[in-house]
Amino acid sequence: MSESVLPSGLCVALSGGVGGAKLALGLSRCLADDDLLIVANTGDDFEHLGLHVSPDLDTVMYTLAGLSNLETGWGLAGESWGFLEALEALGGETWFRLGDRDLATHVERSRRLRQGESLSEVTRTLCSSLGIEARIVPMTDDRVSTVVHSDAGDLDFQHYFVREGCRPAVSGFHFAGIEDAAAAPEFQAAITADELCCVIVCPSNPFVSVDPILLLPGVAGALLAGSAPIVAVSPIVGGEAIKGPAAKMMRELDLPVSAVEVARHYRRRDLLHGFVLDEVDAKLAPEIEDLGLGVLVTDTVMNSLDDRVRLAQETLAFACRLA
Amino acid sequence: MSESVLPSGLCVALSGGVGGAKLALGLSRCLADDDLLIVANTGDDFEHLGLHVSPDLDTVMYTLAGLSNLETGWGLAGESWGFLEALEALGGETWFRLGDRDLATHVERSRRLRQGESLSEVTRTLCSSLGIEARIVPMTDDRVSTVVHSDAGDLDFQHYFVREGCRPAVSGFHFAGIEDAAAAPEFQAAITADELCCVIVCPSNPFVSVDPILLLPGVAGALLAGSAPIVAVSPIVGGEAIKGPAAKMMRELDLPVSAVEVARHYRRRDLLHGFVLDEVDAKLAPEIEDLGLGVLVTDTVMNSLDDRVRLAQETLAFACRLA
Repeated sequence: MSESVLPSGLCVALSGGVGGAKLALGLSRCLADDDLLIVANTGDDFEHLGLHVSPDLDTVMYTLAGLSNLETGWGLAGESWGFLEALEALGGETWFRLGDRDLATHVERSRRLRQGESLSEVTRTLCSSLGIEARIVPMTDDRVSTVVHSDAGDLDFQHYFVREGCRPAVSGFHFAGIEDAAAAPEFQAAITADELCCVIVCPSNPFVSVDPILLLPGVAGALLAGSAPIVAVSPIVGGEAIKGPAAKMMRELDLPVSAVEVARHYRRRDLLHGFVLDEVDAKLAPEIEDLGLGVLVTDTVMNSLDDRVRLAQETLAFACRLA
Repeated sequence: MSESVLPSGLCVALSGGVGGAKLALGLSRCLADDDLLIVANTGDDFEHLGLHVSPDLDTVMYTLAGLSNLETGWGLAGESWGFLEALEALGGETWFRLGDRDLATHVERSRRLRQGESLSEVTRTLCSSLGIEARIVPMTDDRVSTVVHSDAGDLDFQHYFVREGCRPAVSGFHFAGIEDAAAAPEFQAAITADELCCVIVCPSNPFVSVDPILLLPGVAGALLAGSAPIVAVSPIVGGEAIKGPAAKMMRELDLPVSAVEVARHYRRRDLLHGFVLDEVDAKLAPEIEDLGLGVLVTDTVMNSLDDRVRLAQETLAFACRLA
């Protein structure tokens, strides 16, 4: 551990899949379990083969459990594919790659949801079974479905993301059901708690991973009413996304593909106080400061576990300074 | 092929799991695809982990496809178990052993049923995908659930059979839903067809594999109204069942554990004209003849594929002689 000052109180981390999960893992190594709540996007959840699949939530869980497949960025390490091979032979739907072990998560989650457990409760049980001590919650226990408006029509998110391999050009996004959804109880409690000391927006896709979380009824209001600084780590480095379609989406939306644009995106709704910029983008710091934000310039590319922990520490210390 | 006279016309084979599937395979090697309809028990179907599982139907399909696990008698050869291992780690229900590849059958079947296909239609598609040319149908497209009355209370069949390992002592059986169920369309058509030339009751459990088929509304009536001989192959050899709990059940029901009792069971409802007895039970032939039945004494234990084909041929020729 470095000598950085870490916040005292509760830190809420908002995360999508791969990049977000990496920083969430780093944060979990810096903070006591009670001082961190990891909130995962569930706008990309979908019903597939009769199962409730929560791709971002699973990526966060598997990453925190040390079980994730580091090469693919999704699924489990050491996975086997007997199910999918057999399903293919039966002419089933195989575009979403469900490994044999991963499948157990979806089957058990679906079984518990059918029995009336909330997604938060199911997630708590799954995390416990996987030996995860950090607290991970879905953004909501209700159903929110990200729809991608594209030149191939309106697509369910996983159809856009996996089945179509992000090829369609996007023109916008819709979060079906969000107006009737509530933030998950632990998430709602955390952002209205006196002990909330910072909110970390992990380096995830602003449009389809973080926006669904921030746009849940009551979330922005609670954050605006509170005094905890909100700090985002840029998912755009050197004009490209580390992983995923964020940069491609920005081009298609006629936005500059730049970390500045990500900062502007959150700032537009007043939901940002500090921004963590990669060293390769150091020259952009003044533009971001001009938005009225604090800026931390550091190495944000997380290759090793040490990288994840160091970036988490630096981000937390930066948030402390903004408080 | 032997020089036995085979029936001309349509043969309907009634089958439960392992033993029945062996003879069904033999029959499929003796008869043209259009001349055989294999009807599988679905009284042991159940909803498990949100999936529609049809154990007997699957055993028949896998056996006909040459994919069955000959050692266990259920499931697929060369199966992997990643799903079940992961499910166990998550604290899920693992008493019913679902292999990774087998799981694809249940997922795809369940998906198609949810889409509104009948079990007959789904079975046709699965058989086609598995390269099976013989016609296999479920006994019904409706839901019939075998309930075992036992000293451990009323148990769903798979709970009795797999979860409890057949340990409870049985006192009777109930086929929930059977009064509102209809024989599957192809089954109903076959038993009322002019070209029906024989019905083969495969060596399956009379109480829980064959009775659900015979007790479907309209089935006994059609068979009694027709002239096709009904021939059963004894599942009891030398006072024991080749596989499964038939002999144990007979003891618990205070019935003599004897092939004669099986013949009497079917004869009681007039649904039997001929009985195939193993050589070790040759001395029982007069008792069965006294029931008014034709008797064929032969080697009924099917170890090899040749055994299956030979027994099928002999049984068919025997049925011809009874016609």
